[in-house]
Amino acid sequence: MKYVFTDRMSNVKASAIREILKATADPHMISFAGGNPAAEAFPVKEIEKISADILSHDPISVLQYGITEGDKGLIEAATSFFNRHEQALKDGDKMLITSGSQQIMEFAAKCLCNEGDIVICENPSFLGALNAFKSLGAILKGVEYKDGQLDLEALETILKQQPKPKFMYLIPNFQNPTGMTMSLEVRKKVLELAKKYEVLILEDNPYGDLRFEGDAIPSMKSLDQDGLVIYAASLSKIIAPGMRVACCIGPEEIVNKFTVAKQASDVHSNLWAQKVMARYLTEYDMDAHIQSIQKIYKDKCQLMLTEMKKYFHPEVEYTKPTGGMFIWVTLPKHIDMQLFVKKALEKNVAVVPGNAFLDDDTKECHSFRMNFSTPTDAKIKEGVKILGQLTYDMY
Amino acid sequence: MKYVFTDRMSNVKASAIREILKATADPHMISFAGGNPAAEAFPVKEIEKISADILSHDPISVLQYGITEGDKGLIEAATSFFNRHEQALKDGDKMLITSGSQQIMEFAAKCLCNEGDIVICENPSFLGALNAFKSLGAILKGVEYKDGQLDLEALETILKQQPKPKFMYLIPNFQNPTGMTMSLEVRKKVLELAKKYEVLILEDNPYGDLRFEGDAIPSMKSLDQDGLVIYAASLSKIIAPGMRVACCIGPEEIVNKFTVAKQASDVHSNLWAQKVMARYLTEYDMDAHIQSIQKIYKDKCQLMLTEMKKYFHPEVEYTKPTGGMFIWVTLPKHIDMQLFVKKALEKNVAVVPGNAFLDDDTKECHSFRMNFSTPTDAKIKEGVKILGQLTYDMY
Repeated sequence: MKYVFTDRMSNVKASAIREILKATADPHMISFAGGNPAAEAFPVKEIEKISADILSHDPISVLQYGITEGDKGLIEAATSFFNRHEQALKDGDKMLITSGSQQIMEFAAKCLCNEGDIVICENPSFLGALNAFKSLGAILKGVEYKDGQLDLEALETILKQQPKPKFMYLIPNFQNPTGMTMSLEVRKKVLELAKKYEVLILEDNPYGDLRFEGDAIPSMKSLDQDGLVIYAASLSKIIAPGMRVACCIGPEEIVNKFTVAKQASDVHSNLWAQKVMARYLTEYDMDAHIQSIQKIYKDKCQLMLTEMKKYFHPEVEYTKPTGGMFIWVTLPKHIDMQLFVKKALEKNVAVVPGNAFLDDDTKECHSFRMNFSTPTDAKIKEGVKILGQLTYDMY
Repeated sequence: MKYVFTDRMSNVKASAIREILKATADPHMISFAGGNPAAEAFPVKEIEKISADILSHDPISVLQYGITEGDKGLIEAATSFFNRHEQALKDGDKMLITSGSQQIMEFAAKCLCNEGDIVICENPSFLGALNAFKSLGAILKGVEYKDGQLDLEALETILKQQPKPKFMYLIPNFQNPTGMTMSLEVRKKVLELAKKYEVLILEDNPYGDLRFEGDAIPSMKSLDQDGLVIYAASLSKIIAPGMRVACCIGPEEIVNKFTVAKQASDVHSNLWAQKVMARYLTEYDMDAHIQSIQKIYKDKCQLMLTEMKKYFHPEVEYTKPTGGMFIWVTLPKHIDMQLFVKKALEKNVAVVPGNAFLDDDTKECHSFRMNFSTPTDAKIKEGVKILGQLTYDMY
């Protein structure tokens, strides 16, 4: 039997990252390729305690079918949490609990993009989201995002096009893969453009609470007064990703449509995870917990940057994130990045080739992504030294 | 801001069942409308024990990101389990762990149906699956399924069409909504047709283990020697649906494509649920557990049928299931089914109007669905009596 797959799925390759991660199953490998939160940051004891309590006192509530919209207690707790410093959810908005933020990306494309419709993204941007958009037949148009600057002229040129793009996908805080953060000024300008051209924004904010330097910048969702922003607020990076819970906040009409999509997709998200998270958010000191994560990430990032400064060839450029989990490294033009990544892997150090994060992965690219949240301090030191040597060897 | 949604999603209404279920939140309501497993059938103590053990000894394994394919232990345990009486997974096949069977329906349409492609279904069939297919732009063609007979001539007429349909969606055991089971003979004939016309079969088997009378009939998956069948094997009805775990078994090439779809959809399923289920399947006596569920369902079904025989007008017809959770009731033609359902709801008894399960819900329909797994014995008696009175009042 010869199997024929759909056009939309033929645009999606198995994630380049996941293929590299398979190589990193080797215990000798030093992996800077993943995007896992530091395991020591998980509130293990608290989750164990809450879980035991729920399973002994109210087990049916997590074992029976639930409602698609999400557990009421979690919606309440998450609304308070995401509204604690700013108004992310306001009048006319609604929250939908999803199986991770990834699902929000898929619903956005499924509900907003007919096949062939355009989605604007930062170039580079988060591979998993780009794949979700492509898997529903959307066409990506990347706007250069470099040195903290989004090319607003190029953005406006695309926004002007007819038929009009369906939404812009943006990660304003500590972006994956670059670690860069969009300034308040740029956020406001992008919102103005969104309003002028009536194009929605899908704001992905998994890393916002992982800021370890400087002051928080308001989310585009909180700045929006015109129902232009759909907000993906994840709990994966501040509680635990294996639980697969995120919160979609947006204008009621859009969230209702996403809810219908969720019925058809997985009926509802795992209830144990929803109930445990609801109680963790309400019964524990989230600010103290987040501060302890920030401390871990700050130390790891600073260590990686210090070692990079020590060992990398001075002509290698890289971002200096003030939060998040990633550093974006750009090699001098005459070094072949793909060859560099391949040689690094031969020396047991894994990084992700930067072209994987472009709207079109066949474009020329001299960058790669490094993750500092997962490896131990010893591995960071050892791995950076090996990569540094390679920047000299291949210079 | 005026929001414009996609063509594919405009075909999908919020589930008729879920709207009725909202009415049943009223504690005075007797609901035969749901499709929940009996809560007394959940292995509560065992799940509590396994969960505590995992969270105290290996918490990171359920809190950190996992792999898309699914937990290795669960794949192993589920393979043994679903292969215990027949060979569901054979050489050349692979298993993917999904977030409930609903996700398998979505992946089938996403990976196999371009917009406008045809999916064949039994008429009536499971609403949630039909919505998943429609939400990806597939066109449904129903084949009449009545008195245990699938109209094979009508099926062949559709299979002959060009362009060729992409797959047939079938629920051979204790079908939702009718409770009917397809004979071995018909299964074999449908497989022959699938082979002749090279059209895949998506076999949904959530209720197979809920047989309380007669002998099991081999799954179409186990009968297939030509890589024609994708098998959706759920754990929701025999362990717990709120955990959202199912197993997709199919030819490796197809399951690999579904795995790419899953990466873009929710990365992986909740790990706590996967690990708990893996251990439950291996450490406990599943056969004894399943027998205890069968006993509960047999008693509830027999009670409902006995009461229906006692109170329903003799011209009302209904299926006599030998397993599963549903009975399909057909009113005499001169009774308006929609009005009947409305009047029943006014008398605080909820059932689901049958047209919701048709390929085209505007078609004439005289049937409705009743569920016997969720209500208590007292509610079954009380509700059937009210419905019975209504069959006379409206005759």
